[in-house]
Amino acid sequence: MLEEILQQVQTGKLSVSEAKEKLATYEDLGFAKVDHHRKNRQGFPEVIYGEGKTKEQIHSIIKAIRSKDQNILVTRISKEKADYILREHPEFIYNETAQILYWKKNINGKESYQGYIAIVCAGTSDLRVAEEAAITAEALGSEVRRFYDVGVAGIHRLFDNIEQIQQATVSIVVAGMEGALPSVVGGLVTHPLIAVPTSVGYGANFNGLSALLTMLNSCASGISVVNIDNGFGAAYNAVLIDNIAKKGAKKG
Amino acid sequence: MLEEILQQVQTGKLSVSEAKEKLATYEDLGFAKVDHHRKNRQGFPEVIYGEGKTKEQIHSIIKAIRSKDQNILVTRISKEKADYILREHPEFIYNETAQILYWKKNINGKESYQGYIAIVCAGTSDLRVAEEAAITAEALGSEVRRFYDVGVAGIHRLFDNIEQIQQATVSIVVAGMEGALPSVVGGLVTHPLIAVPTSVGYGANFNGLSALLTMLNSCASGISVVNIDNGFGAAYNAVLIDNIAKKGAKKG
Amino acid sequence: MLEEILQQVQTGKLSVSEAKEKLATYEDLGFAKVDHHRKNRQGFPEVIYGEGKTKEQIHSIIKAIRSKDQNILVTRISKEKADYILREHPEFIYNETAQILYWKKNINGKESYQGYIAIVCAGTSDLRVAEEAAITAEALGSEVRRFYDVGVAGIHRLFDNIEQIQQATVSIVVAGMEGALPSVVGGLVTHPLIAVPTSVGYGANFNGLSALLTMLNSCASGISVVNIDNGFGAAYNAVLIDNIAKKGAKKG
Amino acid sequence: MLEEILQQVQTGKLSVSEAKEKLATYEDLGFAKVDHHRKNRQGFPEVIYGEGKTKEQIHSIIKAIRSKDQNILVTRISKEKADYILREHPEFIYNETAQILYWKKNINGKESYQGYIAIVCAGTSDLRVAEEAAITAEALGSEVRRFYDVGVAGIHRLFDNIEQIQQATVSIVVAGMEGALPSVVGGLVTHPLIAVPTSVGYGANFNGLSALLTMLNSCASGISVVNIDNGFGAAYNAVLIDNIAKKGAKKG
Amino acid sequence: MLEEILQQVQTGKLSVSEAKEKLATYEDLGFAKVDHHRKNRQGFPEVIYGEGKTKEQIHSIIKAIRSKDQNILVTRISKEKADYILREHPEFIYNETAQILYWKKNINGKESYQGYIAIVCAGTSDLRVAEEAAITAEALGSEVRRFYDVGVAGIHRLFDNIEQIQQATVSIVVAGMEGALPSVVGGLVTHPLIAVPTSVGYGANFNGLSALLTMLNSCASGISVVNIDNGFGAAYNAVLIDNIAKKGAKKG
Amino acid sequence: MLEEILQQVQTGKLSVSEAKEKLATYEDLGFAKVDHHRKNRQGFPEVIYGEGKTKEQIHSIIKAIRSKDQNILVTRISKEKADYILREHPEFIYNETAQILYWKKNINGKESYQGYIAIVCAGTSDLRVAEEAAITAEALGSEVRRFYDVGVAGIHRLFDNIEQIQQATVSIVVAGMEGALPSVVGGLVTHPLIAVPTSVGYGANFNGLSALLTMLNSCASGISVVNIDNGFGAAYNAVLIDNIAKKGAKKG
Amino acid sequence: MLEEILQQVQTGKLSVSEAKEKLATYEDLGFAKVDHHRKNRQGFPEVIYGEGKTKEQIHSIIKAIRSKDQNILVTRISKEKADYILREHPEFIYNETAQILYWKKNINGKESYQGYIAIVCAGTSDLRVAEEAAITAEALGSEVRRFYDVGVAGIHRLFDNIEQIQQATVSIVVAGMEGALPSVVGGLVTHPLIAVPTSVGYGANFNGLSALLTMLNSCASGISVVNIDNGFGAAYNAVLIDNIAKKGAKKG
Amino acid sequence: MLEEILQQVQTGKLSVSEAKEKLATYEDLGFAKVDHHRKNRQGFPEVIYGEGKTKEQIHSIIKAIRSKDQNILVTRISKEKADYILREHPEFIYNETAQILYWKKNINGKESYQGYIAIVCAGTSDLRVAEEAAITAEALGSEVRRFYDVGVAGIHRLFDNIEQIQQATVSIVVAGMEGALPSVVGGLVTHPLIAVPTSVGYGANFNGLSALLTMLNSCASGISVVNIDNGFGAAYNAVLIDNIAKKGAKKG
Repeated sequence: MLEEILQQVQTGKLSVSEAKEKLATYEDLGFAKVDHHRKNRQGFPEVIYGEGKTKEQIHSIIKAIRSKDQNILVTRISKEKADYILREHPEFIYNETAQILYWKKNINGKESYQGYIAIVCAGTSDLRVAEEAAITAEALGSEVRRFYDVGVAGIHRLFDNIEQIQQATVSIVVAGMEGALPSVVGGLVTHPLIAVPTSVGYGANFNGLSALLTMLNSCASGISVVNIDNGFGAAYNAVLIDNIAKKGAKKG
Repeated sequence: MLEEILQQVQTGKLSVSEAKEKLATYEDLGFAKVDHHRKNRQGFPEVIYGEGKTKEQIHSIIKAIRSKDQNILVTRISKEKADYILREHPEFIYNETAQILYWKKNINGKESYQGYIAIVCAGTSDLRVAEEAAITAEALGSEVRRFYDVGVAGIHRLFDNIEQIQQATVSIVVAGMEGALPSVVGGLVTHPLIAVPTSVGYGANFNGLSALLTMLNSCASGISVVNIDNGFGAAYNAVLIDNIAKKGAKKG
Repeated sequence: MLEEILQQVQTGKLSVSEAKEKLATYEDLGFAKVDHHRKNRQGFPEVIYGEGKTKEQIHSIIKAIRSKDQNILVTRISKEKADYILREHPEFIYNETAQILYWKKNINGKESYQGYIAIVCAGTSDLRVAEEAAITAEALGSEVRRFYDVGVAGIHRLFDNIEQIQQATVSIVVAGMEGALPSVVGGLVTHPLIAVPTSVGYGANFNGLSALLTMLNSCASGISVVNIDNGFGAAYNAVLIDNIAKKGAKKG
Repeated sequence: MLEEILQQVQTGKLSVSEAKEKLATYEDLGFAKVDHHRKNRQGFPEVIYGEGKTKEQIHSIIKAIRSKDQNILVTRISKEKADYILREHPEFIYNETAQILYWKKNINGKESYQGYIAIVCAGTSDLRVAEEAAITAEALGSEVRRFYDVGVAGIHRLFDNIEQIQQATVSIVVAGMEGALPSVVGGLVTHPLIAVPTSVGYGANFNGLSALLTMLNSCASGISVVNIDNGFGAAYNAVLIDNIAKKGAKKG
Repeated sequence: MLEEILQQVQTGKLSVSEAKEKLATYEDLGFAKVDHHRKNRQGFPEVIYGEGKTKEQIHSIIKAIRSKDQNILVTRISKEKADYILREHPEFIYNETAQILYWKKNINGKESYQGYIAIVCAGTSDLRVAEEAAITAEALGSEVRRFYDVGVAGIHRLFDNIEQIQQATVSIVVAGMEGALPSVVGGLVTHPLIAVPTSVGYGANFNGLSALLTMLNSCASGISVVNIDNGFGAAYNAVLIDNIAKKGAKKG
Repeated sequence: MLEEILQQVQTGKLSVSEAKEKLATYEDLGFAKVDHHRKNRQGFPEVIYGEGKTKEQIHSIIKAIRSKDQNILVTRISKEKADYILREHPEFIYNETAQILYWKKNINGKESYQGYIAIVCAGTSDLRVAEEAAITAEALGSEVRRFYDVGVAGIHRLFDNIEQIQQATVSIVVAGMEGALPSVVGGLVTHPLIAVPTSVGYGANFNGLSALLTMLNSCASGISVVNIDNGFGAAYNAVLIDNIAKKGAKKG
Repeated sequence: MLEEILQQVQTGKLSVSEAKEKLATYEDLGFAKVDHHRKNRQGFPEVIYGEGKTKEQIHSIIKAIRSKDQNILVTRISKEKADYILREHPEFIYNETAQILYWKKNINGKESYQGYIAIVCAGTSDLRVAEEAAITAEALGSEVRRFYDVGVAGIHRLFDNIEQIQQATVSIVVAGMEGALPSVVGGLVTHPLIAVPTSVGYGANFNGLSALLTMLNSCASGISVVNIDNGFGAAYNAVLIDNIAKKGAKKG
Repeated sequence: MLEEILQQVQTGKLSVSEAKEKLATYEDLGFAKVDHHRKNRQGFPEVIYGEGKTKEQIHSIIKAIRSKDQNILVTRISKEKADYILREHPEFIYNETAQILYWKKNINGKESYQGYIAIVCAGTSDLRVAEEAAITAEALGSEVRRFYDVGVAGIHRLFDNIEQIQQATVSIVVAGMEGALPSVVGGLVTHPLIAVPTSVGYGANFNGLSALLTMLNSCASGISVVNIDNGFGAAYNAVLIDNIAKKGAKKG
């Protein structure tokens, strides 16, 4: 494009000032290369962190996004706020356990890709975070399988499900208390595992610090960690990995 | 196999006690399903953590592994210990910066897969951890590209390289001091990013705690974190992800 | 049992497919050896952690357990929730200080065993945790003696009771504030002592951290520690030890 | 004895002042009841914490104890110091891994009691603490079985040994890094389990804090915790419990 | 008393069994020497920590103490609870800022002793703790002078009052935020100074930890520290020191 | 002045007692030199920290200050309290986001000085602190430019504004979460930068500790840090620096 | 410049490909606007952090910089390493207390500007950090005045110097132990104050954490803080502020 | 004195300039009132903190002080440095355990005062700190009694000495590990008690933090705390209190 402009200047088709203006735009696009990979994110919803925003604030953000016909994912949104949105947008889906409200433009056609994300946790107390991960991953377009009662203290329940977990493309393992579950699962699988400490526990748990340290210090290989209670972040990561597998599958 | 044994009992080909013995083995293999996915790890080297082991201990572990013709990777091994091993195993490769000694049985043939792992760090002080990640990833069979002078404080150097980093399958971003680099890179790429805090710094750095917290709290999506200075762990993770891409590429 | 099945196949009493089905169960029981020691826990109630569960949730869990005629222990359950359960299960016992609701199928006949668990604490502020331990131990079938006003600051009250404490099979010592009581008791007894830090205190107490560290650092021998406020865990431990003594007493 | 003195006063065999003197002694023994349970500790060695003491200091303490023909256990003593003691006391036994030097007066005759303490750890790096526990327990008179390669990351090795661990009277589980092993073992056994965090690890391990918190927060029942690296303390506890079982066995 | 009993035995006035019973009491008093210095505390009120107790509980404790005609000091008691007590005990005095309710039997006659406790703080935000100290000290019988607006940031106000502070027998210096005031005052006085960190502040104040550490690390000599917000403890200490001065003054 | 007084004494114009009185004042002014630089602060408002004060308390402090015709700045004051003040002082200005209420006596005439303070933050969640800084700086007499949507994760928005930020006299950069923004801005500007960590975040953010440590450890030069959420303190600092520039501009 | 190139193309002085090449450079300079404010830093030396670099590494970095005739400042460099450099560069200046080696191209001519940076600390133990700040500021071109024995515990020494400190343009206050000095100085000056905590102290000092928290929580206005022991960072900041004053002075 | 000067001016005995000079001194003494209470410290030695100073530095400080015939106390001074000083000052006394070197001008005549400071600790590991306290107190002129083997774990040894401890004017209680001793002693005495945590311990002791927190949280009244290992500070405090008692005794 630069060459073209210069030739037009050379041949008099463009005056110097016209060329300057065009090149100014061009130069302003200098930074654009920073952003052009973002296109890959197309199909990903705009994400709104609902905590600390009023229902009106959330609503007006949603309106702005919807005008661009973009998918939407609102995390940490209470039932009361969600109901407010749902009155005007009944096509939205709300999951109360996950505290997530979302809307997806198009359910894609049948895919050949068979992979899925395994979401593993020990019990009902970690459910909110596990579901935040599960719903996020689904909203971002991945298949999810839930393994929700497979804690360390009753390890045989984990073994009953281990083959299905092993066949996942990537696992998200959510654990509070002592946070040992990712270490155990990590020793049994050969795919990437994203560990999510939760703030569930009491006493010397220190709001999830105990589980966080456990996971960072895991002696099993293939484990990386996200912030305490950050089910969304874990799912985002897992979907990026799952998409790599998908891309391969599509080629195949 | 169970059916076969039973039929042989039925037809008298096996006595009850012979069948019992065979099934005992079978039953002992009951746990085997736990381990059978490990086959996927074939080709991966046995990993020895060299710190705190004498050169003689390392040597005897190596001998045991070599008898099985298995690849080997020794991390956190000093030059002095490595020299000792190299005298008997001159075919091994030692990287002093990474403090890694390794041996790979077979350099695989040309692959069609063009993907690579980007390893990003700010400067010379984080080099040891970055190289631990790089050499580990290479020893585990992945292509690596190094971006080693792209810190936050001189951000234009990062932009000079950003396109190459964006085209990687997965990034490892190593940072000490305030640990802000993964957040910046994370905002510019659309692939999974593994952040490695290092213990480089002083004062209120608290041996890497500062960088670790920064990374866990990153507001960029797609970032997961491994333990302080754990270049090996980051690489292991990245290779698992890279292998997912490879598998797709092979299919294609 | 395996031999039996094989002989039945040999003699034609079982077809191959029938045998396979039976052995399938057998093989599924492969993991059962992992669990078979659990039988020792018979008589132990199912434990439900009441905090964070609604009264309806607790009720439906109780119904499921009662159908198996199993003993039940609900910890951290408020009076209001307990009243809800008691309306349908008036045979249950609720202890408000301990915040425990439980039911025991059979009060065992007179035992020859004379041992007991001593539960020691300094004052009214640690009572909730001490009673959680006491009621738990009683619900699990142990004899308990309470020593509830024997703090470090008025040590003569401890000495008035020391002989009875010394004759216990195992002691649980509950302490908040500076948590020094286990060290003092630990120097005076020759049986195992389980220390429970409580979150009682203010200022630099840091929600029980102060007491926890004190107990972990105790220079008296024979002390082990459970989590802050974990009266239940201490009692569970103590009962396991008490049961060892009981088993011996029964033999004698 | 009091009655005797009074009768002698009554019958004139003792003058008032003579009786007073005798009773003074008696009264001084008032505190003795505090200490009389210590007799139960007979047979237990005197314990010397070797760290920070010179070999000459250790030697002179040993001489003082030996004059009372008492068993001796020196913990945290280096080979160089131990050699110094062994030159004069060749009958002592030194274990270098455990850093323990000890002497036992009499190896007791055959006992009917078959119980033992299981000492479980994941690998070579936790060996020093595990051996401190093992040697201490043996020196205190208990039978010990070692399970030293049964970590969480390769959980099948734990299962190969689980039955023997389950049959122990009490377990000591030693773990560094993320410290998850006690939670897993705790879910599989029905006897008391003493967890020992070790300072083995790096990065966000914080000298064992990570493992300590994991163990305190364990969701498995029956676990209590001792200080970081405190193999001695765990063994002391375990032996107290084992002695309860022994006492029962002797009665039987 | 012992002699008396023995003489009665000698002379037949007491039977052996009667004497035994009396001496048993005597022996029980064996520990009494532990407690006999407590007499020095006469005149000191019984102290009740009001936080976490209901008004009814406080009331019944007060009734028990009043029956012994003992002085009373209730700390951390809200106005609402105090009003409840005052309805039945209108002779009590309540100080709302200090959250203290107390009653003193007798206002002692004129003393020759002129000493006083200086209570120093920076501003209105530390007032509650300063007043807790002041009222406590007064209730315990000491003279108090308040210096309540002499912070570090406006140091000239401190200097306007420094001579009066210097002439105190002992100072209590209360400070939140950065807690620097005790260091400054400590450099200007030659009497003992008790520093009280308060939880006043925000951000990296960590509920008083900042001020606590500042005071412990003070480079001025003659400073000792009590727990965060512990105005009562500081006053108790200061009164003990003031009483030493008083005793001397009385002698003089 | 001293000489004058002495001459008047010498010449009898002043009696000794009159001179003494005058010198007393003089001596009292001994400390005055400590305070005389305060004159430079003229024009600066009196600052009232509103949190924890009742509206009545704030009102009476304001009345006292207004009697001296002094500018006023109340920080951390809720809308409800501000409304109460505004009813009597309708000339006051209240900013709800910043939670600041203030009054400035005189809007100074046109200045030649063109400098300004850049206030930079990433998003809506840090707005309260950023506005506290902005309104404070304006109330203290500085020009302010706001850059409120320029976070690290979307770094191109920062670049769109970087020239204006670079031309500021001094920058205040407000950031929560991982707190990386000051490092990035610090690498792009050549003027002093004051970093303000906020308590915005969750999980391992620890109420702003994460951001605080990040900023203290920044590898960019020219950055200093104030307390968590301390927008006021940052602005006060920035205005002091801006005033240095102003003074120079006025001279010029 | 763009216009010039385009005119040359228009007039045929440049071919399209020549213009393209020139503009390529121009476009590459697209990011240059990011960096163009750096020119303001001219005269500032290149800074090398000496710790952890060998003398050879430092030497070769110096050689590279000297080829550009640039000023140089090496911090945290030991005497032994400095001597090595000095042998080849005898024109360099080394300050052992500050551990700084530097070289300045040109000592600028007499300036009209009279301002200076006050560097304040309490005693000999903080000297290394204070001198790192002082030498850095001097090497960066500012006038420095040292006030090195003015601690909080002996506050009269501070007052003897307070007027000179007050007349500085900016102060750097260095303090270890409890770190209270900045609060006191901050209450007495009306210019910006940069506080540097040092790691000097013991016990609950926690390597400077105590002083750091004190300074962050200071109730005096106008204080900002740099990292523990970061004398260089404080000086860099102070010089940026001093340069603002200089610029004004030059204009005047 | 001011009046006197003025009268001399009035009467012509002093010229104005002479008076000015005298008053200048007087005015310079303006701050002196700040310092005049220091006279009370006469007899107290100058204290030099030896750690981190060379023997030559210590020597030259000593020479400067000796020229004023002042008592001297050097703390934290190694034997090797002390020997160097002792060669020139053989009249000095060195205590190696306490690491203190001191010199006292005059041993005062017989005093009527019988009071003493009790220094209490548990064992040999806390000896260095206890002796630092003891020698300091003696060097500052107080009588000291040592109770050095009275730990919490063997509490009967404490009771054997409790009466003597109770009769002290003030106690210093030194404890490492769990730091429970001050709580126990504090419950048995009625005089002020200064608690000194030591850094003795391991594991979760965190260099004395555990003992420090225990002491701050003590539920016994009359306890205040100094920094970890700060035997000197405790002694300085105790001597100030002891001097109050002495002053009274002298009057009497």
